[in-house]
Amino acid sequence: MPMKPAPRSLLDPAASLLFFGAHPDDIEFGCGGIVAAETRAGHRAHLVICSRGEAGSHGTPARRCTEAKKAAAILGATVEFIGLDGDAHLEIRAAHALKLAGILRRLRPNIVLAPSLVENQHPDHYRLGQLVRDATRLARYGGLRELRRWQSHAIDQLFFYAVTPEAEPRDLTPVLVNISEPEIISTWRTAMAAHESQTSARRYLELQLTRARLLGLRAGVEHAIALFPNDPLIFHSLAQAQRGARLF
Amino acid sequence: MPMKPAPRSLLDPAASLLFFGAHPDDIEFGCGGIVAAETRAGHRAHLVICSRGEAGSHGTPARRCTEAKKAAAILGATVEFIGLDGDAHLEIRAAHALKLAGILRRLRPNIVLAPSLVENQHPDHYRLGQLVRDATRLARYGGLRELRRWQSHAIDQLFFYAVTPEAEPRDLTPVLVNISEPEIISTWRTAMAAHESQTSARRYLELQLTRARLLGLRAGVEHAIALFPNDPLIFHSLAQAQRGARLF
Amino acid sequence: MPMKPAPRSLLDPAASLLFFGAHPDDIEFGCGGIVAAETRAGHRAHLVICSRGEAGSHGTPARRCTEAKKAAAILGATVEFIGLDGDAHLEIRAAHALKLAGILRRLRPNIVLAPSLVENQHPDHYRLGQLVRDATRLARYGGLRELRRWQSHAIDQLFFYAVTPEAEPRDLTPVLVNISEPEIISTWRTAMAAHESQTSARRYLELQLTRARLLGLRAGVEHAIALFPNDPLIFHSLAQAQRGARLF
Amino acid sequence: MPMKPAPRSLLDPAASLLFFGAHPDDIEFGCGGIVAAETRAGHRAHLVICSRGEAGSHGTPARRCTEAKKAAAILGATVEFIGLDGDAHLEIRAAHALKLAGILRRLRPNIVLAPSLVENQHPDHYRLGQLVRDATRLARYGGLRELRRWQSHAIDQLFFYAVTPEAEPRDLTPVLVNISEPEIISTWRTAMAAHESQTSARRYLELQLTRARLLGLRAGVEHAIALFPNDPLIFHSLAQAQRGARLF
Amino acid sequence: MPMKPAPRSLLDPAASLLFFGAHPDDIEFGCGGIVAAETRAGHRAHLVICSRGEAGSHGTPARRCTEAKKAAAILGATVEFIGLDGDAHLEIRAAHALKLAGILRRLRPNIVLAPSLVENQHPDHYRLGQLVRDATRLARYGGLRELRRWQSHAIDQLFFYAVTPEAEPRDLTPVLVNISEPEIISTWRTAMAAHESQTSARRYLELQLTRARLLGLRAGVEHAIALFPNDPLIFHSLAQAQRGARLF
Amino acid sequence: MPMKPAPRSLLDPAASLLFFGAHPDDIEFGCGGIVAAETRAGHRAHLVICSRGEAGSHGTPARRCTEAKKAAAILGATVEFIGLDGDAHLEIRAAHALKLAGILRRLRPNIVLAPSLVENQHPDHYRLGQLVRDATRLARYGGLRELRRWQSHAIDQLFFYAVTPEAEPRDLTPVLVNISEPEIISTWRTAMAAHESQTSARRYLELQLTRARLLGLRAGVEHAIALFPNDPLIFHSLAQAQRGARLF
Repeated sequence: MPMKPAPRSLLDPAASLLFFGAHPDDIEFGCGGIVAAETRAGHRAHLVICSRGEAGSHGTPARRCTEAKKAAAILGATVEFIGLDGDAHLEIRAAHALKLAGILRRLRPNIVLAPSLVENQHPDHYRLGQLVRDATRLARYGGLRELRRWQSHAIDQLFFYAVTPEAEPRDLTPVLVNISEPEIISTWRTAMAAHESQTSARRYLELQLTRARLLGLRAGVEHAIALFPNDPLIFHSLAQAQRGARLF
Repeated sequence: MPMKPAPRSLLDPAASLLFFGAHPDDIEFGCGGIVAAETRAGHRAHLVICSRGEAGSHGTPARRCTEAKKAAAILGATVEFIGLDGDAHLEIRAAHALKLAGILRRLRPNIVLAPSLVENQHPDHYRLGQLVRDATRLARYGGLRELRRWQSHAIDQLFFYAVTPEAEPRDLTPVLVNISEPEIISTWRTAMAAHESQTSARRYLELQLTRARLLGLRAGVEHAIALFPNDPLIFHSLAQAQRGARLF
Repeated sequence: MPMKPAPRSLLDPAASLLFFGAHPDDIEFGCGGIVAAETRAGHRAHLVICSRGEAGSHGTPARRCTEAKKAAAILGATVEFIGLDGDAHLEIRAAHALKLAGILRRLRPNIVLAPSLVENQHPDHYRLGQLVRDATRLARYGGLRELRRWQSHAIDQLFFYAVTPEAEPRDLTPVLVNISEPEIISTWRTAMAAHESQTSARRYLELQLTRARLLGLRAGVEHAIALFPNDPLIFHSLAQAQRGARLF
Repeated sequence: MPMKPAPRSLLDPAASLLFFGAHPDDIEFGCGGIVAAETRAGHRAHLVICSRGEAGSHGTPARRCTEAKKAAAILGATVEFIGLDGDAHLEIRAAHALKLAGILRRLRPNIVLAPSLVENQHPDHYRLGQLVRDATRLARYGGLRELRRWQSHAIDQLFFYAVTPEAEPRDLTPVLVNISEPEIISTWRTAMAAHESQTSARRYLELQLTRARLLGLRAGVEHAIALFPNDPLIFHSLAQAQRGARLF
Repeated sequence: MPMKPAPRSLLDPAASLLFFGAHPDDIEFGCGGIVAAETRAGHRAHLVICSRGEAGSHGTPARRCTEAKKAAAILGATVEFIGLDGDAHLEIRAAHALKLAGILRRLRPNIVLAPSLVENQHPDHYRLGQLVRDATRLARYGGLRELRRWQSHAIDQLFFYAVTPEAEPRDLTPVLVNISEPEIISTWRTAMAAHESQTSARRYLELQLTRARLLGLRAGVEHAIALFPNDPLIFHSLAQAQRGARLF
Repeated sequence: MPMKPAPRSLLDPAASLLFFGAHPDDIEFGCGGIVAAETRAGHRAHLVICSRGEAGSHGTPARRCTEAKKAAAILGATVEFIGLDGDAHLEIRAAHALKLAGILRRLRPNIVLAPSLVENQHPDHYRLGQLVRDATRLARYGGLRELRRWQSHAIDQLFFYAVTPEAEPRDLTPVLVNISEPEIISTWRTAMAAHESQTSARRYLELQLTRARLLGLRAGVEHAIALFPNDPLIFHSLAQAQRGARLF
């Protein structure tokens, strides 16, 4: 039985990240600072948005897609829209997980980010998180008829992001991504502001920046975003782990 | 207010690790493979052993200290013995935490490892874990009379190791350290075998190697040891995180 | 209101066990040692397999069914295959739970085993676990039109098994089944090896035996398998409880 | 390395149980029905009471000890009083754990019961639980000077009981002991009523019987008491497990 | 961005409560005492029952609906029946959540009660709880075509009730509602007894009254029912919080 | 047996609150906004500070006490200092719990606030929280010699506050106190700024205001502080509960 291949060298410039969002603004609000940080570090980022936000209180679907495309460009990411059941109508279906697994096989990312599984949030969020997690498994299985045209693919790691503070899991230890560089914060802010139909109605921008600032204050940096790894991280030396997040 | 200094560069050769053990064999059995991996990678490792194992069923205190020194040498680590309350007599006292904080200030390690806080294990184990955690805080506070002769010191990260499987915390997400290189396993095995007074009485060696092999099988490597970070890890890019531990 | 009937006498030879598996090899890998132990003790064991493994990377459906039949024979169990949504396509549907409840009414087992509910594993596993748990309730309800041809049936206990280590629940206290007798281990090993299409591709056999050995070392026996009871166990005397699993 | 000896045969008449209580009435209120059931089944039960209840609002120490002796006699148990730090003054000290370990070595029980570790209850309760758990380990270690006059002893299992409903652990799966026989309930009730200084001031008797009745209604028996095993139970066949506790 | 309007004044006579039940007797058994207390305090209560209990072992659908109407009248509540998938057939569908959201918009309640999300109970119970929670979100979103004819509505709070003791969540801190007034208990008892087809077959009435009495004994009142808030409560002064539930 | 007396009427002007802090600034930083809100609402607030902060990196004990007195005056609260073991030296001792219980009996508060029990924070914080919780029990017991000169006293409720975000318990559902009134925030800010020796060295003020703003954004108010009740709250009507904290 072959072991898994050796891990990519650290800071591999070819690393590619795939972000899934249930609505046109979820990725930007939940972890846009990370998209900005990774593309700035030379990694490739692609966003897959699974509805056009047609159930929202503000903004037409067309406008929201335009906003999302603009935001993706600001973040240095590519973007695509797919249809599942429609905004606020998402259901757990094997066909959806297979569809997402097909995307994973086509794009072959190293790292995948999806909304967290906490159920006390918008139902599309946690259901998409479940479907993505299932999809990362299905993408590996060789016998799936629907996925036959792509080679099977095993990602390196799945991380969950929280669109809002309530969506942060309480039973998983987070990792924090340091997004303190002024250019990263500024890019993130601009990308969030591109969702003008939403930010003009609610204080999303302040919510997210306050959240990142609070984490930054805890961690002794300017701003940080918490992610929740689906599986334990593997290190070759604890020197990789660097320092933990406790200032006070 | 000054921010914390920039993190050490990855794989900083000057990284130093400090391991605390309640008994002469706890470090070797619980995370000896990590000591071997880190010293092999060029990092400095120092072991602080807080009793002479005088309550154990097998081996005199003198013999156990000799075994511990031999094991440390095999692992490429330095070792010292300190007295707290004696084997199986450890109590939570402020004086103990201050004593350990003094050691932290004197040695100024980047990374500290201590036994886990799970209470359903040998009482010296979890109490030492609590004392070390408290000590990592006290080492930072400027006004402590007892610590005045050393400069205050903030470590980078505290990890907990589990001496036995029961001691693995269930509410913390572990990180796994890959110790698959044959030389590392062989060094670890020899270091454990140096505790002959113990290994001749119970299957400690098989217990620990079976544990590391099971984790390795889960993670797609040969052998691995789980550690439990006391605080969230901070990353500058998710590319640092490499892959997660899920093979099956 | 009539109370439940008196419990079966201990070691009742008529006890019958029903095992549910999502794929042709799940039961053997996850708890085959328990099937072997129970049939050796004179109890009846029946396996219900809910797909033909057609999504797997290795082995045709026909081959996998043949392997499963061979494994069941080795374990001294009977086996049947049922169709739900197909491998890697299982969804939570009331019709599935009713179908499983019909099987429970037809076979009237005392004890039922199903895959655990931990969601970070193959989606068919935890969904089947959920469906079986729901089915054990539906089997009791008198008014279900679809189940009218069988008498209602209340099982004695539902246990969950974990196909892989990641599938072990962290919030339920396990019970351990001692499978140390050499004949039991040998039977289990042979039954797992019957799934040659799988074991030739991945180290499943080593994974499971290492897992059982680690539990055995913890418990002071040769090998053990952990099960997770869905409901509290009832004892008439603590002398029934025998000893707990802590050696180190 | 010798394996542990074979388990006692089921319902071994020689099984002996040791109950620890922090105050003269804790055992009776928290699990007196189990004492009654076990002595009725022919097992030996001994109660160790670690204060004279001198901090309570009602009853002199002398009266409370008299009540405890009367209650023990009603339950068919022997009883002894030991001093630790006094009622409402208990502290975690190594000397206390060693003292309790000495009692374990002297009496050599199979099964030990202690108050649960839930910290939101009378501080003597959870501290005694911690000390007893530590003591069950210390009783096994060969090198403890203070315990030299007794042979080391390994108990079979430690169970926690909850003196009040708030003290029931939420993170451990309980086992239920069926105490439905009218003679058992009647004996328990009489033993509780022997603590007249307490029952005349507060509705302890109703509290405990209501608790046992609620568990009984859930489990499909008349009355039951929940215990919380410190370590997983080991079974040789699932037929030992009998049925689970779910009626509604 | 407009803030939410000021909270209703305390004890607002116009407060209206909406209770969802999966079967004709779930509300009465699980929290009928609260319905009685609230209508007695002058609040409006409406019950929405989502099946006719056609899968139950006892009572025809027609009889059960008659019983439910009688019970609602006794409790001073209005009642309506809706169809989802039928008793024991409930599935998680976006269409169901939208249907429930439509009811929320039509009735515009302040406070909503639904069965708890604990999965180890009748599958209709926890699925209805999930659907109601999702519905409370959907009711707020402006763009949902299916809900266009009603104005969007944000409830004040969602509470979960537990139909049986097993359904009480262990990870949420409950709030207790004091239902000690004799008229409330008497009304509740009569309303439960109205479900004669059920109470003649099983000890539901004793189960619920025992449960409420045990909580009352813990809290220092006669009877109480536990509810589990979906979101943190907001206070303007801690004096609102009154006292906590600890007598023993 | 007498039941507890009827609860105080809502918004009882005589309500008195007692706050415990381990260091001179803990109460102000952790929940000073609540002190301000309660005194503004006409309730009495008293602060008990259990060290002079002599281990801190900044500020002499004398200066820190002066700052604490100034801050208390700003908050409209009275203040006293007591000695336990000294800053960074606190140990769990029965004598300490009794001393705190004596204070409870002397001052007879309705509501008590203490630092949370989360152990991964300054050791004085969680130990003081444990001692206060134990003290609230001891204050009720009639037979304690050390407390004889005061009448026994039962508080209404104990709440925990978190000095820093890490100290927020993850297993308790918080209640939120709305401190949005501009005068409250301004008073709180001034009181925190009075601890100039601390705020000039670290961004405590920004940390706490950011934390309160984030909670406010989540809850739909300007600012809020989370508290963690030690025991379930009791309500007489759900109308008391008002609305929950979910805006996004």
